[in-house]
Amino acid sequence: MGEPILLKCVGCGREFAPEPSLFTCPDCGPSGTLDVLYDYDRVSELLTRESLDKSREFSIWRYLPLLPVAHDTPRTPLTVGWTPLYRTESLGSEIGCPDLFLKDDGRNPTASFKDRASAVGIAKAMESGNNIITCASTGNAASSLAGLCASLGLRSVIFVPATAPRAKIAQLLVYGARIVLVEGTYDQAFDLCYDTAQSCAWYCRNTGINPYLSEGKKTAALEIAEHLNWEAPDKVFVSVGDGCIIGGLWKGFHDLLEIGLLDRMPQIIGVQAEGCQPIRQAIETGKPVEPVSPDTIADSISVGRPRDALKAVRAIRNSGGFALAVPDEEILDAMRTLGRSTGIFGEPAGVTGFAGLRQALRDGLVRSDERVVVLITGNGLKDVDSALKAVGEPPRAKPDLDEIRKVVEEHYPECL
Amino acid sequence: MGEPILLKCVGCGREFAPEPSLFTCPDCGPSGTLDVLYDYDRVSELLTRESLDKSREFSIWRYLPLLPVAHDTPRTPLTVGWTPLYRTESLGSEIGCPDLFLKDDGRNPTASFKDRASAVGIAKAMESGNNIITCASTGNAASSLAGLCASLGLRSVIFVPATAPRAKIAQLLVYGARIVLVEGTYDQAFDLCYDTAQSCAWYCRNTGINPYLSEGKKTAALEIAEHLNWEAPDKVFVSVGDGCIIGGLWKGFHDLLEIGLLDRMPQIIGVQAEGCQPIRQAIETGKPVEPVSPDTIADSISVGRPRDALKAVRAIRNSGGFALAVPDEEILDAMRTLGRSTGIFGEPAGVTGFAGLRQALRDGLVRSDERVVVLITGNGLKDVDSALKAVGEPPRAKPDLDEIRKVVEEHYPECL
Repeated sequence: MGEPILLKCVGCGREFAPEPSLFTCPDCGPSGTLDVLYDYDRVSELLTRESLDKSREFSIWRYLPLLPVAHDTPRTPLTVGWTPLYRTESLGSEIGCPDLFLKDDGRNPTASFKDRASAVGIAKAMESGNNIITCASTGNAASSLAGLCASLGLRSVIFVPATAPRAKIAQLLVYGARIVLVEGTYDQAFDLCYDTAQSCAWYCRNTGINPYLSEGKKTAALEIAEHLNWEAPDKVFVSVGDGCIIGGLWKGFHDLLEIGLLDRMPQIIGVQAEGCQPIRQAIETGKPVEPVSPDTIADSISVGRPRDALKAVRAIRNSGGFALAVPDEEILDAMRTLGRSTGIFGEPAGVTGFAGLRQALRDGLVRSDERVVVLITGNGLKDVDSALKAVGEPPRAKPDLDEIRKVVEEHYPECL
Repeated sequence: MGEPILLKCVGCGREFAPEPSLFTCPDCGPSGTLDVLYDYDRVSELLTRESLDKSREFSIWRYLPLLPVAHDTPRTPLTVGWTPLYRTESLGSEIGCPDLFLKDDGRNPTASFKDRASAVGIAKAMESGNNIITCASTGNAASSLAGLCASLGLRSVIFVPATAPRAKIAQLLVYGARIVLVEGTYDQAFDLCYDTAQSCAWYCRNTGINPYLSEGKKTAALEIAEHLNWEAPDKVFVSVGDGCIIGGLWKGFHDLLEIGLLDRMPQIIGVQAEGCQPIRQAIETGKPVEPVSPDTIADSISVGRPRDALKAVRAIRNSGGFALAVPDEEILDAMRTLGRSTGIFGEPAGVTGFAGLRQALRDGLVRSDERVVVLITGNGLKDVDSALKAVGEPPRAKPDLDEIRKVVEEHYPECL
């Protein structure tokens, strides 16, 4: 079900029938990212409020008619998606935005949003008969691909910058990925991965290249809409690196408009780190995206040359949203605030959307009566070193009752 | 709903009406762990296959009539429980146990099984009007308590051995817990926590002391039974430290027998690390549990003086199960095997149950036609140092296509 009818170049608009080897527009080259278009009339018959109310499939696959995957394609047995959307009124009121929701995508099988894309990418690889799948990644896409490949007995070959957080590399190794630690940037790892995939005929799960990843990522938008009973929120905040997540969100809301399950597009707000804001600069200046040298603690969005820039810029402009950049200190502060106020522990890039919301509220860019959703894209356990930068060292005590009492009196008098 | 009718001492059998301050048997002292008993006739009217089929509450609270928590008690807004139970036939066949299921409790909000207990413990604290909750922990109970307290605006005071994995300490700090790093063992931290809680009148979320934790933990058994359509598996394997998880599992199956939703008790198999096997030794010798000096990589079950020994031993004996001990190398190997074959990344204690299953299969203690469930109790991201011990270092390459090609040829020839 939901076989794509067409692939359409986001750059030149040319349309193509899907073929296993067609990834980007032959006319525009690797920058010619493709959209997946459906027969929306048909989908609107298959995917309805009623069909979803009855569904007991609590994962991204509940939206199969809107996914480019055949009914009988093998899928990862791991439960991907259907992550919680928490109403967080008390934190919301504190920051001036009481109608606030947080979607915790760190609850995915490999603890990041990227599982949505990997699940669909891997299904497409299986449809094309290719059992070796590769990607370059700052970490999360890699561990996601590796974990989901492991669940299906497929091979993954991963190109990752040698500077990626240890937890992400540990995950890769445990999942049995074939890893190449590239002594360079993500952007270099990306190009090397792409070229090696071409010469080795590996299936390429690379953002901006593989058109099906956005389709996996859009499931977060479908879930947000369904959880909010098919009423679009006013604004959605999300961190932006390559631009694929934000592009996928837009596509999800777009598809729901097409099939009549939503009646308006929420404003989509892209948040980058101050030390790496090529998308924000493009939005600001109205010019094409210019590469930058990234410098931010938020490794997952430390992307100087965004591969899904076209889709990212479209998401922001078409939805009437805007782009922001936040300093690393505010990212760390967002991590602390979310942990302390909600019990959600996000990684730096995972909480950057929330840091952006706070800045937008300060700048008067969000009204206090607006319904806002912030996407938390990855679990903080993936980058403990950064988490430890966000917090101090706890006090120590010898194993003695008097010593303990002294520590409590000195550090936690409010508990006495 | 589901207010407990009685508390009953597991040691002497005396029964008590519940009161907020009653934690252990006044006659037996701190070792007099209590069971929570229900009016099972009444519960069997409220909790039926039909009521559960209709329920849209996909968390531990779907079993509210079997939980000791009032309807209107505030609960953590985080989604606890209802974790996936994966059928893993291919790995199962490989090891000689094709009807194998893995329950991944690393998918809980703070990435461990302990959230089940914390959710119920915190609800009971709120019922008793106490806003400061304390526990001692090897790590997971601590981060769980801290995260869930944060979600409700409560204070947590945490006693943790200074040797706990950094990720668990980072979690605690991000959740805003008041932490005391105790320069000693878990057993020392436990006693110090208990004594300080008494003198400061903090609510005590300590295993073996607080009778309501088992009730939270039993929800895993309820979920296993429901996922398997109310047919008990033949065997359930689980790692054992304090003994509270295994005791909770038994209690869950027991309660289902009482209300007629199951018709037999599965055999429950407790797996400990070779370097810390007091429960296994007690089962072996038939004598009371003797404290040991723990020495294992599996920090979450590195418990020399198990606080829930009575419930643990009962779970194994009463279910006709057995106990095993596995060396640390097999725990690390279990971590690798699970990661590579299923995409589930468990922490050392989290995969110890699986290491035990492999040993039991080798020893002829499990028949190949038996249905086996293994509980994975915590996410591997919580202990990356141990994970890195389980795997090697990945190869590195300069950012150059020829260099990359050489790495692939040398290390991953099967991908060419």
